Amino acid sequence: MIVETKVSSATKEVIIGGNRPTVLIGERINPSGRKKLTEALRSGNLEMLHKEAVSQVKAGADIIDVNVGATGIDEVALLPEAVKIVMAAVEAPICIDGEDPKALEAALKVYKGKAIVNSVKGEKKSLETVLPLVKEYGAVVVGLTIDDDGLPKTADKRVSIAGKIIERAEKMGIPRENVIIDTLCMAVAADSKAGMPVIEAIRRISAEFGVNQTLGASNISFNLPDRHLLNDAFLSVAIPAGLTCPIVDAAKVRPAVLATDLVLGRDNYAMRYIKAYRQRLAAQTRG
Amino acid sequence: MIVETKVSSATKEVIIGGNRPTVLIGERINPSGRKKLTEALRSGNLEMLHKEAVSQVKAGADIIDVNVGATGIDEVALLPEAVKIVMAAVEAPICIDGEDPKALEAALKVYKGKAIVNSVKGEKKSLETVLPLVKEYGAVVVGLTIDDDGLPKTADKRVSIAGKIIERAEKMGIPRENVIIDTLCMAVAADSKAGMPVIEAIRRISAEFGVNQTLGASNISFNLPDRHLLNDAFLSVAIPAGLTCPIVDAAKVRPAVLATDLVLGRDNYAMRYIKAYRQRLAAQTRG
Repeated sequence: MIVETKVSSATKEVIIGGNRPTVLIGERINPSGRKKLTEALRSGNLEMLHKEAVSQVKAGADIIDVNVGATGIDEVALLPEAVKIVMAAVEAPICIDGEDPKALEAALKVYKGKAIVNSVKGEKKSLETVLPLVKEYGAVVVGLTIDDDGLPKTADKRVSIAGKIIERAEKMGIPRENVIIDTLCMAVAADSKAGMPVIEAIRRISAEFGVNQTLGASNISFNLPDRHLLNDAFLSVAIPAGLTCPIVDAAKVRPAVLATDLVLGRDNYAMRYIKAYRQRLAAQTRG
Repeated sequence: MIVETKVSSATKEVIIGGNRPTVLIGERINPSGRKKLTEALRSGNLEMLHKEAVSQVKAGADIIDVNVGATGIDEVALLPEAVKIVMAAVEAPICIDGEDPKALEAALKVYKGKAIVNSVKGEKKSLETVLPLVKEYGAVVVGLTIDDDGLPKTADKRVSIAGKIIERAEKMGIPRENVIIDTLCMAVAADSKAGMPVIEAIRRISAEFGVNQTLGASNISFNLPDRHLLNDAFLSVAIPAGLTCPIVDAAKVRPAVLATDLVLGRDNYAMRYIKAYRQRLAAQTRG
C-alpha cells in the first residue's frame, strides 16, 4: 500500500497516493525548451506565469510546478516572485523546482502551505543542503534517483538510490510520506530499451518502500513522431506500476490518465471520466 | 517467462509470447453488433469477408478471427466457407471462432495450418467436446475463464478456472503452449471496478502458468464516450501484465499497442513504431 502524501496551498489540500486517482503536476512553468517563456522571465515579465498557472489548473493540473532556471536568470530573486504570482493566480499547491538551495529557500520562505521541493539528488552535497530545508519548512521533497555516478541504466541502481534518499530523510526526521521518488526516464529514441528499467524500478520502489512517485513523463518520447502516443502509453504502463503524481502537460495527457484510472478502478461510477468528456464536448461546442 | 505459441497458415507462421511484440488478432469478422455483415452472412454473401480480412491485415492484424455466429445462420455450413475465403484472401493465420463444436470441426477440416480454436469454457461439457478437436487437429485453443457458475467477478476465480483448463488440456496431451487464456472483461460503465480483477488475473496467470493470453479488449469501454481512450489505456495496462495477443480492431488500436511495446523495450530501435508512423503519414498524404 502506498502512503498518503499531503501537499497544500493556503486554501487547498491535495492528497497523493493511497488508491486515489492519479495527481497531475503541471509542467509548463519551466523555461527549458520554451523560448518565449525564457525571454519573458529574463526581462522580468512574469505575467505569463499567471496565465500558465490558470490554464493548467483549468486543464486538470492538481499541483503547479514552478521552475525559472535558465542562463541569465537570477533564480534566488526570481523563484520567490514566481511562486507569489502562482499562489495569487490559483489555489493549487506548488512544486518549487530549482537546483540552487538558496533559491529553494527563498521560495519556501514566501510560500503559504506545504510545498513540494523539486528536487534532491542521491549525492552527498545535494542531500546535505536540500534535506535540512525540507525538514525546516515541513515540505515534501522529490528525490531523484541519480548520484555522483550519473543517471543509472538499471532498475537496481535506481531502487538503491531511492532507498538511500528515503533513509537519509528519515534519519533527519522527514517521514517517508514526505518523500516522492523520481526514477528519471530517458528517451526511447536514444535507447529503445530505456523504458523497462524505469517501469521495473517504479514497481519495486512502490513495493519495497511504499512511497509516492513522480516522473517527467514526456522525456520518453523525445525525438520521436506522434509523441502523445508514447506519452500516453508510458503513463498507462507506469501508473499501475506505482507512478502516482507524474509531471505532465495536463491539457495533453489528462484524458489518457483518467481512462487509466478508470481501468484501474480508481474512478467510482466513472464520474471523473464522464465529467472530463463533457467538458471537452462543451469546449468543442464553444470553439 | 511466457511460453511461445506458434500459429500458422499454409504459408506463414506467427509466434506469440516470449518477449516479442504484441500479436493482434483482428476482431472484425464477427456479426455481433454489425448489422450489414449479419445480413450479408444470412444471405450467403461472403464477399465482405474477403475485404474485411485484407483491410485488417493492412491495418496490422497478425491473425484473423473468423466468427459467423448469429440467429438464422447455419454455422456448420458457413464457418468452413468463411474460413476458406479468408485463407484465400490473406496469409495471416486464422482464429476459428464459434460455440458449436460441429462448426469448429467443419472449419478445422478445411483449414491449412495450425489454427487457433476460439473457444473452450472451463465447464465439463465444453471441455469434453472442444479439447478432443484441438488435440486431433493439433490446434491452439482459447480457454475462457468462465464455468457453470458464469463469469467470475474476482481474479481468484479466473485464475482457478484458467488452471483447470490448462490442467485438463495437458492431461489430454495438449501442451500448455497450445492454450491461450481469455480472462474476459466486463464494461466499466456497468461496474467501474470491473477492470482491476481482470488485470490482476492476467498478471497472476502469466506468473503462475506462463501461458499466452488474449482478451476482447473493447468490451471494457462499452456504453462510454470516447471509447478509444479506454481501449488504448486498457491495452497499455494489460499488455505489461501479460496480455500477449488481444482481439482488437487493429486499425484503431495499433498505434497505442506499438507505443506500449516500445515503452516495454519490445521494439528494437523503435523500428516498428517509426514504420507505422510513416505508413500513417503516407496514407494521410494520399487521402
